[in-house]
Amino acid sequence: MTVRQLSLPALVTACVELGVPGVGLWRDPVRAYGVEAAAKLVRDAGLAVTTLCRGGFFTRGPRSDADNRDAVDEAAALGTDTLVLVSGGLAPGGRDLADARATIADGIARLAPYAGERGVRLAVEPLHPMYAADRCAVSTLDQALEIAERFPAEQVGVVVDTYHVWWDDLAPAAVARAGRAGRIASFQLADWTVPLPAGVLNGRGQLGDGCVDLRAWRRLVDAAGYTGPVEVELFNEGLWAREGREVLAETAARYTEHVL
Amino acid sequence: MTVRQLSLPALVTACVELGVPGVGLWRDPVRAYGVEAAAKLVRDAGLAVTTLCRGGFFTRGPRSDADNRDAVDEAAALGTDTLVLVSGGLAPGGRDLADARATIADGIARLAPYAGERGVRLAVEPLHPMYAADRCAVSTLDQALEIAERFPAEQVGVVVDTYHVWWDDLAPAAVARAGRAGRIASFQLADWTVPLPAGVLNGRGQLGDGCVDLRAWRRLVDAAGYTGPVEVELFNEGLWAREGREVLAETAARYTEHVL
Repeated sequence: MTVRQLSLPALVTACVELGVPGVGLWRDPVRAYGVEAAAKLVRDAGLAVTTLCRGGFFTRGPRSDADNRDAVDEAAALGTDTLVLVSGGLAPGGRDLADARATIADGIARLAPYAGERGVRLAVEPLHPMYAADRCAVSTLDQALEIAERFPAEQVGVVVDTYHVWWDDLAPAAVARAGRAGRIASFQLADWTVPLPAGVLNGRGQLGDGCVDLRAWRRLVDAAGYTGPVEVELFNEGLWAREGREVLAETAARYTEHVL
Repeated sequence: MTVRQLSLPALVTACVELGVPGVGLWRDPVRAYGVEAAAKLVRDAGLAVTTLCRGGFFTRGPRSDADNRDAVDEAAALGTDTLVLVSGGLAPGGRDLADARATIADGIARLAPYAGERGVRLAVEPLHPMYAADRCAVSTLDQALEIAERFPAEQVGVVVDTYHVWWDDLAPAAVARAGRAGRIASFQLADWTVPLPAGVLNGRGQLGDGCVDLRAWRRLVDAAGYTGPVEVELFNEGLWAREGREVLAETAARYTEHVL
């Protein structure tokens, strides 16, 4: 998503040339290219698919179940063991966040066995509280863990994304708890920059441009025992308007400067 | 602030005509009108000044101290016992929220005795986490209480504002804890509507237009023993563009419909 202006073949070529060993993919471009063709493209290049984004939106009604099973199938076909879940906000017209989280947990309960049979782990991503109404009623790592812990660790984990949790003084302890339980399924980076754009979706900052102590979060996740891939996930109109390979190279350099 | 298009005299007249018994004032219009003149205007109309907004911004450097003492003086002159604090975000260029909160607590420690001597209580307002970087490093009621509890309850309390805390599953318990300790200094209402506008400052929804269960929050605060005024604080470009008295009448009607 960081360089969504690149076609899948151009993305794969750029990753290989820059020494980026893995890539997190999103469903729409994968489906547009063809799931099997995308899987072959990435596999032939020697790249790992770190995660597939995204399943979820359990609160939008029962049709989400079939779509989420499709997402699991696509993850399995791509050879990734992790499907990221953006769980959904309030039910249409609803005002009850606790009820929304119960609906989410029920949806995960229906999906987790299906995913487990296909070697795919569900990764519950807490989103920043500014998305609680319309995107994700799971707003904190503690809430995500409370849901994940109802299931075996190999079936359901959590995502630690600096953009969503950087503000939360309770998140470091939750990272440690998730790590001890083997439930950190994905670690994602984005920086926090202000002012936020209208809609607050596409304002995630390039690493180093904002106020998040990214290296401190990486060390927290390291100390929690996480040894998996580190993803950079930026939704940023400014970055999307630039040449994609240049953005990818800049991002790799920023990673070295601010995270390693 | 909900009807900032009204002059102070027009605001006072409208409140009296609509049977609104008290009004929260902001410093800028009060100072522009003259603090003593504003105090006389409101007092002669039989209106209470519920709170003065705002002091704070402790993280912007030592000059905030003098300005905050001025704010206390203005509150005392207006006859309100409550000065709302928007505490400030990260220090310029900073990345350490815990350090920002320590700076805020230090600033409150310098200000609280001065305020106490003048009959003014400081009200620490947690702001939504989307403001943590640039406006207020105090993002949750629990954080606000952790700071307030270092001081006597009659010197430092907290603000419960539905816009800022509605998403937080830990907030109801914090409301109860604050109420037991006599630390709810102010209860403010705004609804949450999406999409958020650029800058995320002026998108607070009219009561009933959004997804916050306002009546449930009022009941929570009631159950916690709060008997003080209930303020409606909307920053909303759409409301500001309309005729102010009409907006005030609508707000009073919405209050009856969604809160009482």
